[in-house]
Amino acid sequence: MSNQTLTAPKGFRAAAVQAGIKTSGRLDLGLIAAPCSCSAAAAFTTNKIVAAAVVIDKERIRAGRARAIFINAGNANACTGKRGARDVHTISLEVARHLDIKPDEVLVCSTGIIGQFLPMDKVRAGISRAAAGLSGSAQAAKDLARAILTTDLKTKTAYEKFILHGKQVQIAGIAKGSGMIAPHLATLLAFITTDAAISPAMLRRALRQSVAQTFNKVNVDNHMSTSDTVIVLASGLANHKRIVKTGRDYERFARALGKICDSLAYQVAADGEGATCTVTVKVKGAAGPGDARRALRAIVESPLVRCAFNGADPNWGRIISAVGYSRARFDPEALSCKIAGVRVFHRGRPCRFDPAQLSRRMKDKQWQVEVHLGAGKYADFCYTCDLSKAYVSINADYHT
Amino acid sequence: MSNQTLTAPKGFRAAAVQAGIKTSGRLDLGLIAAPCSCSAAAAFTTNKIVAAAVVIDKERIRAGRARAIFINAGNANACTGKRGARDVHTISLEVARHLDIKPDEVLVCSTGIIGQFLPMDKVRAGISRAAAGLSGSAQAAKDLARAILTTDLKTKTAYEKFILHGKQVQIAGIAKGSGMIAPHLATLLAFITTDAAISPAMLRRALRQSVAQTFNKVNVDNHMSTSDTVIVLASGLANHKRIVKTGRDYERFARALGKICDSLAYQVAADGEGATCTVTVKVKGAAGPGDARRALRAIVESPLVRCAFNGADPNWGRIISAVGYSRARFDPEALSCKIAGVRVFHRGRPCRFDPAQLSRRMKDKQWQVEVHLGAGKYADFCYTCDLSKAYVSINADYHT
Repeated sequence: MSNQTLTAPKGFRAAAVQAGIKTSGRLDLGLIAAPCSCSAAAAFTTNKIVAAAVVIDKERIRAGRARAIFINAGNANACTGKRGARDVHTISLEVARHLDIKPDEVLVCSTGIIGQFLPMDKVRAGISRAAAGLSGSAQAAKDLARAILTTDLKTKTAYEKFILHGKQVQIAGIAKGSGMIAPHLATLLAFITTDAAISPAMLRRALRQSVAQTFNKVNVDNHMSTSDTVIVLASGLANHKRIVKTGRDYERFARALGKICDSLAYQVAADGEGATCTVTVKVKGAAGPGDARRALRAIVESPLVRCAFNGADPNWGRIISAVGYSRARFDPEALSCKIAGVRVFHRGRPCRFDPAQLSRRMKDKQWQVEVHLGAGKYADFCYTCDLSKAYVSINADYHT
Repeated sequence: MSNQTLTAPKGFRAAAVQAGIKTSGRLDLGLIAAPCSCSAAAAFTTNKIVAAAVVIDKERIRAGRARAIFINAGNANACTGKRGARDVHTISLEVARHLDIKPDEVLVCSTGIIGQFLPMDKVRAGISRAAAGLSGSAQAAKDLARAILTTDLKTKTAYEKFILHGKQVQIAGIAKGSGMIAPHLATLLAFITTDAAISPAMLRRALRQSVAQTFNKVNVDNHMSTSDTVIVLASGLANHKRIVKTGRDYERFARALGKICDSLAYQVAADGEGATCTVTVKVKGAAGPGDARRALRAIVESPLVRCAFNGADPNWGRIISAVGYSRARFDPEALSCKIAGVRVFHRGRPCRFDPAQLSRRMKDKQWQVEVHLGAGKYADFCYTCDLSKAYVSINADYHT
């Protein structure tokens, strides 16, 4: 199979090394290097407490251009004050020096534990080795996809290609998620490369639209992290007519970018800490968009509901009562609910169904919950997972 | 020791029987009978999906008077439509007939599974036996405290007495909690008897004040139930000068009622499903009451924070980052946090502390988290517990 990784879009190189930031001794530092100054766009956490790198990246991305991304896992460099900010500048300088680019063309992402200083000697040595190892091979990109993980079990990758004015355009992405995943922000870390030729403004627009419908729809544990960042770099080397306005070409690109983000977002939910199943929760028939969102949040933020998912227990009472306290507008007599395609509650009344049979369906890896508020025409959805004993183990048994 | 149960306040009788509603074969149906028409006040769940009994109790409590309370556990009689409402009326008629009172002097409370009809033959037989067994003994009240439990492990009781104009006034309460416990509503079931002489209006005022500062401060799992009800009955048999307005006498009574509610609320948090520790979370220095509340909710609704409590892990990063996304107003540079009395984060900077020693303190049964927003003079608090593997077991492994 042809290369379908971050290094597939023309000219991008990647590298990952074991710098010694993670105590586990796994890959923990990576670089993405673009072939030229790229159109760049990003989305960030809306948390008021942010990693040092987020503050600096937000400033840099305003220019709409970037050439390289530094990523480390194992340490978020958050709540680290002036020294944390200084370390981000040092990282940028080091990366820029090795790649012969400007420091403000470097974006920096750190994920991991909060409140500890980066081990800068290890980071410096890691940058040096990573820069020397930069490669356009699929293996380099696969290593990078592993290096950005924290408690994730699987790498998350996505790839799309399409033809624009006779030229092939490729988009590829990687993500890490697992814990501290809440909706309505740019959750987690995700890095997307493309050889599309597109202006920074159009790229920003496409990313904003995609994130709203994908990464912002994932909820693993309601907890919004301090490091969440999604970055897309577009090199333009596909060499088609540059996209500078909305229209057919833009829509083509935006749709492909949306697919990448949707695939990565779903993979993040599926690999939520301790997850044994991925559940798409849909709310329909809402009186307004806020109502759909409120009902969704109440459902997926209820640990009772998510324990029922874990136990494959068709306990619709927990779902219905969560909608009840969500402050979404609805008439209890018009409320309906389906679990894994089975009607369990219809227009305010319990339905007859075979609980054992439905429970078997809920043991599948992926299924849906559908709630109809019967109050209007708005709909929304969310990707979530179950709450398992393994989630508690991961977050209680292993100390900081 | 003298009787300090629900039957201690003059004239109250109680009974509990095993009616066969719980499949476990434990006590599951109870009655509280007042000696006369009492001043009565109640607070209810704010869930839009409510048990049939809640709708009817809300209507009846408007009169400010009641003479008896029926309680069953094992079945919430919620989402049961017209038949559910009819069953509540049947229960009221049966209780009224046996006690020779009017049906609208009976308050009905049902807790347990949602969406199933009450087994009315068993309920009728249970009422008959309970009415015949009504007693002013401490044992009868203790049995009742057990009968109202669902997944609770312990009974929850509280007792206060004081002298008013030379007369002894007694207040006693019981509660059940455990799961589906969220703040900012009248959570759970609680029943309070007193022989105080007080008008319905003053009783309502005192209950509302007490609930706001106690039951509304408990959060076990963010999930608001459909049955939550707190009821207080005041017989007046203490025979002091009746409390009909605010002032010294009212304050005396309200303070005692507040203590009862606070004790029961704390016991509910301590017996939260799977709980191994009870944590009082305090937010201080907030710019407004809404800010304190938002910060509190973000902290206690984060499963990551509550898993750290379970693991006795002094992971302040999870607490600080929860405050960060809470939408409470604060300056990151002024933010401080203490865990179990130890300063872990001060004015935006991590503090040096001995994590092993602090972890040992967090293994105590009860301790505090204190967050200072450094933004104003408002404060708020919440009682919560840890999130354990046992919580997941209770709510995933045992099917509806």
